Amino acid sequence: MSLPDPLVRLIEELQRLPGIGPKGAQRLAFHVLKTPRDETDRLTDAIRDVKEQVTYCSICSNITDSDPCVYCSSSDRDRTIICVVEEPQNVAAIEKSRDYRGTYHVLMGTLSPLQGIGPDDLKIKGLVTRIGAGGVGEVILATNPTVEGEATALYLARLLKPLGVRVTRIATGIPVGSDLEYADEVTMNRALEGRREV
Amino acid sequence: MSLPDPLVRLIEELQRLPGIGPKGAQRLAFHVLKTPRDETDRLTDAIRDVKEQVTYCSICSNITDSDPCVYCSSSDRDRTIICVVEEPQNVAAIEKSRDYRGTYHVLMGTLSPLQGIGPDDLKIKGLVTRIGAGGVGEVILATNPTVEGEATALYLARLLKPLGVRVTRIATGIPVGSDLEYADEVTMNRALEGRREV
Repeated sequence: MSLPDPLVRLIEELQRLPGIGPKGAQRLAFHVLKTPRDETDRLTDAIRDVKEQVTYCSICSNITDSDPCVYCSSSDRDRTIICVVEEPQNVAAIEKSRDYRGTYHVLMGTLSPLQGIGPDDLKIKGLVTRIGAGGVGEVILATNPTVEGEATALYLARLLKPLGVRVTRIATGIPVGSDLEYADEVTMNRALEGRREV
Repeated sequence: MSLPDPLVRLIEELQRLPGIGPKGAQRLAFHVLKTPRDETDRLTDAIRDVKEQVTYCSICSNITDSDPCVYCSSSDRDRTIICVVEEPQNVAAIEKSRDYRGTYHVLMGTLSPLQGIGPDDLKIKGLVTRIGAGGVGEVILATNPTVEGEATALYLARLLKPLGVRVTRIATGIPVGSDLEYADEVTMNRALEGRREV
């Protein structure tokens, strides 16, 4: 099989993207080939604009196109609460719930000794500075309930409690709308441990 | 939730791609955000190069970066056989089998009266010209075994047989390595109809 070189290169580049395998990359490449030039230009411009215009908030490390970000600069948000998440996309997930009115702090990863990621590689220093400046009453640790996320939460709890703030962790348990039958043992265990008076 | 505008635009553009939904587009956009600039440049360059450098072969309508394409210009290929396919990616599928040493003709679609696609919208005229020029002994109809593909094959068979060439159709049946249990009735029927002496 000999596809034209530019197409082979595009397939290779597309395969580097997460969740796109060889078949998917080929389908996308042939789609690009058939798509009018102005549509593919819109896509490449959008990619370039994201790289050029989107930066990170100097306060909370969330992604933003203006510094500080909308959450850190808004007068509507409660600055006494900081919700700590792993990645910028986690902010979007929490905002979707429409319940949270505090501010955020994005760690840009989790502690992972095996991959050589220690506290200095995460945006922890900035978080400590924010708490040190005063006015913060509660820090909600909303890292993922994975091994790395739990370890990071534990590390942060030990680090932040001596600073005199209330440190909380989001609840783990059975997701709303799902069936007990499909819950794994660890989640079931957590759901039982975390039971509350009704 | 308020993501930066450039990111929202990128998510919108990514969602236009086939097989990429809202969640997938968001994941890809955040991936672009984290990826070093030179890697995203390689991707956008690859897209632009495909649009600028890949064209269609003037003989067989296959995609190529030089005209005529490798199959039409190669002295290794048997020009007495033409394999007719719907799309350029079908050529790749047939080449993978490593069995076929003839040339190709890409129709760039199938007959589809409902979508207003008639014979004049496909590359049929060029196929008739190639056969008319003489030297072609067999035309293999390798359109997909779908309603449109079958209709297109039937139309071509009626059109080409009077030109004095042998017209054949690829076999349909149970795929190699699969289980009869999972074959649909139509495929099972075709497999029985197409049975051969052993």
